[in-house]
Amino acid sequence: MKIGIYGYGNLGRGVEKAFACNPDMELVGVFTRRDPSTVQTESGCPVYAAAKAEDFEGVIDVMILCGGSATDLPEMTPEMARRFNVVDSFDTHACIPEHFAKVDQAAFQTGHTALISAGWDPGLFSLARLYMNAALPEGKDYTFWGRGVSQGHSDAIRRIPGVKDARQYTVPVEEALAQVRAGLQPELTVRQKHLRECYVVAEEGADKAAIEKTIREMPNYFADYDTVVHFVSLEELRRDHSALPHGGEVIRSGKTSAENKHIMSFSLKLDSNPEFTGSVLLACARALGKMHARGVFGCHTMFDVAPADLSALPPEELRKKLL
Amino acid sequence: MKIGIYGYGNLGRGVEKAFACNPDMELVGVFTRRDPSTVQTESGCPVYAAAKAEDFEGVIDVMILCGGSATDLPEMTPEMARRFNVVDSFDTHACIPEHFAKVDQAAFQTGHTALISAGWDPGLFSLARLYMNAALPEGKDYTFWGRGVSQGHSDAIRRIPGVKDARQYTVPVEEALAQVRAGLQPELTVRQKHLRECYVVAEEGADKAAIEKTIREMPNYFADYDTVVHFVSLEELRRDHSALPHGGEVIRSGKTSAENKHIMSFSLKLDSNPEFTGSVLLACARALGKMHARGVFGCHTMFDVAPADLSALPPEELRKKLL
Repeated sequence: MKIGIYGYGNLGRGVEKAFACNPDMELVGVFTRRDPSTVQTESGCPVYAAAKAEDFEGVIDVMILCGGSATDLPEMTPEMARRFNVVDSFDTHACIPEHFAKVDQAAFQTGHTALISAGWDPGLFSLARLYMNAALPEGKDYTFWGRGVSQGHSDAIRRIPGVKDARQYTVPVEEALAQVRAGLQPELTVRQKHLRECYVVAEEGADKAAIEKTIREMPNYFADYDTVVHFVSLEELRRDHSALPHGGEVIRSGKTSAENKHIMSFSLKLDSNPEFTGSVLLACARALGKMHARGVFGCHTMFDVAPADLSALPPEELRKKLL
Repeated sequence: MKIGIYGYGNLGRGVEKAFACNPDMELVGVFTRRDPSTVQTESGCPVYAAAKAEDFEGVIDVMILCGGSATDLPEMTPEMARRFNVVDSFDTHACIPEHFAKVDQAAFQTGHTALISAGWDPGLFSLARLYMNAALPEGKDYTFWGRGVSQGHSDAIRRIPGVKDARQYTVPVEEALAQVRAGLQPELTVRQKHLRECYVVAEEGADKAAIEKTIREMPNYFADYDTVVHFVSLEELRRDHSALPHGGEVIRSGKTSAENKHIMSFSLKLDSNPEFTGSVLLACARALGKMHARGVFGCHTMFDVAPADLSALPPEELRKKLL
């Protein structure tokens, strides 16, 4: 199956890495909005200007869109779905219905197949919630994230005057996790579920107390959480906080009768968020290619993908080895 | 959707309980090979002789087969698939390919739809292995079971002369679990993964030392494991060991590059194995009914079921609430 990567940041590089473990998938090229001559891929695959993508219509089976959810994907996915089968990792939860409708129209009209909001959350965590709700209709869901780097929160700190660089970790509160894992079904506030740990490099002479206050009081991002701020040197930040780990846990706690309670859990502990997400996107591209070949058009999510389609193994072997 | 339960043991009663949490599903009746006048259902739904099932062809959308894997289902599922859409929980792993082929032929020839090997293992645990393998092709799978009651092992002990009753718990070895969860990818023998804990009621005057020796040395069941045998009174067994808890954990530990490792885990802690399995079977019956209505015939497993089909919620609501 021939695959293109459209957008070559952290996530694009994560998808590129995944080809080494998926020999049935072929990377045709990376498409970038930067000057292609300035971009060197890790695998040595060709780099093309984004505008050149149209030359690959009918050649690339699935284009994996690696733009950001804030401004790139809302335009990019519907536009690209007119010319390619596309997979994206759109993760602005509140805007998914609108995004879905736009992509569905574009793909359907042109006989293409699209899969949006793929990855691990949305993605594998959403699937965990769906399977758990179907298996245990009476119960309560919990999703914990971390310990992991939140790019959005790190960016929010970087925009504060006097801040040179920053890294924010989302950290689940162990006590809350323990209560949920024990099936106690606690009601938890935002503050009781996660805390936020910030590593901040201040500019020389900056007012650190003022920076810390601005972080702690920032609405939506930090005001509702217990927030810990550590000031570190640029060297320390680069040395100790340059990785992008993440993960989390989806837990459903419920019952099938007055007497019998059950606890279900799905968890991830990831050294590299973009590499793992990239690997999931490539599996989704495989499924999408199969669905398109069967004449399934329009927009879909991982909820609509038969699990077997994600695998390179034929159905008989899946039944023999994994069932 | 109209559902029948065929076979009314622990699992059949578990399926029956699940209707309370699934108001879109209607239980039409229970079918039993016993004399129906001797069977009282917990929900008060009608009980019919197994032979009466044929009167319900065209009335029941999906028949959930609650027979045992050893002798019932190999005959029952292909036979019933000629007259109904059927779901079973066939769990003899080695025989799944053969069972699948027989059921597929029967269902396909008669325009029915079948789903075999549903539940949690095979079932949700198989799905976890499939998703994990697709997301992380380079890695190693582990499945731990328990702490939970193994009916097969309990039955094996009961067949020993001098044994009145027995209950066997499969217990995962904590040290092995900890190594796997830490991503160490150990090579583990059967003995290093699980131990077997037996509660045995001996008949009066029976030779307990001989019974214990027979258990410990029983090939396949106990010889390869560390086995603990406790002799208890019948009262103790009934008071402390009458529940059927179970559960376990599927873990995949792998990497996406030389630097970055990832650990994925799916776990279940179940107060009642038959009630939880019954609840999963009912969700599978829902999916099967939808697939049949779309003209999908023949035999399938949970690998072939689009997750959204398991849910009572429409796709838009799933995307809004769970994605």
